[in-house]
Amino acid sequence: MSKQGGLPVLGQDEAACCAPMVREPLGEADAAELAKMFKALADPVRLRLLSLIASHEGGEACVCDLIGPFDVSQPTISHHLKVLREAGLVGSERRGTWVYYWVLPPALERLSALLQTPAATVSA
Amino acid sequence: MSKQGGLPVLGQDEAACCAPMVREPLGEADAAELAKMFKALADPVRLRLLSLIASHEGGEACVCDLIGPFDVSQPTISHHLKVLREAGLVGSERRGTWVYYWVLPPALERLSALLQTPAATVSA
Repeated sequence: MSKQGGLPVLGQDEAACCAPMVREPLGEADAAELAKMFKALADPVRLRLLSLIASHEGGEACVCDLIGPFDVSQPTISHHLKVLREAGLVGSERRGTWVYYWVLPPALERLSALLQTPAATVSA
Repeated sequence: MSKQGGLPVLGQDEAACCAPMVREPLGEADAAELAKMFKALADPVRLRLLSLIASHEGGEACVCDLIGPFDVSQPTISHHLKVLREAGLVGSERRGTWVYYWVLPPALERLSALLQTPAATVSA
């Protein structure tokens, strides 16, 4: 399935990738990489786009589904989708007329695990 | 305990606050609020500061513990700590000469839950 080709190779073992920051301080290289991913999330339109893609039926959304809900131009939406893709948060593929987007779970999972607190771990 | 006074009132019920984005798309108001928190995380020095505070023995760190590891000036560190505090990610209190910082678990938990994927839920 072509989607798999879009998954990034994270380049570190899972323990290092997903340790909660309450357990150990971040190194410089990890912090630089993670800050880029958080920067992609630091915009309300991008956050809503990502949530529309993530919650879309079948786990992927056509760009044609993503323009309607926003009061901004199609080029602006395309720019935001590019930022999400370059941050490694979504994958994309052109099929015929439209480009389709899906979230990359390992990337979201890495950020989610980083922010986990002991309280959350206990209540999960 | 004076720490409790520093906890923000989140102003929404827990279900709404912590729904993963794979389950439902974000509304405009939530996206705007969450984007501000992610913006505070979108800087390598702030991420490392937050991780130093979060992982510090006893769950809190004196500003005097936070200056040494960085190759930036004390005013720059103070500015980054202010950004983290204003985003609701850390609390702080002056005790004698030094200001002490601790993470606010509900804020981290909210971001962590937002980014959770079904894969992460299964493996947790």
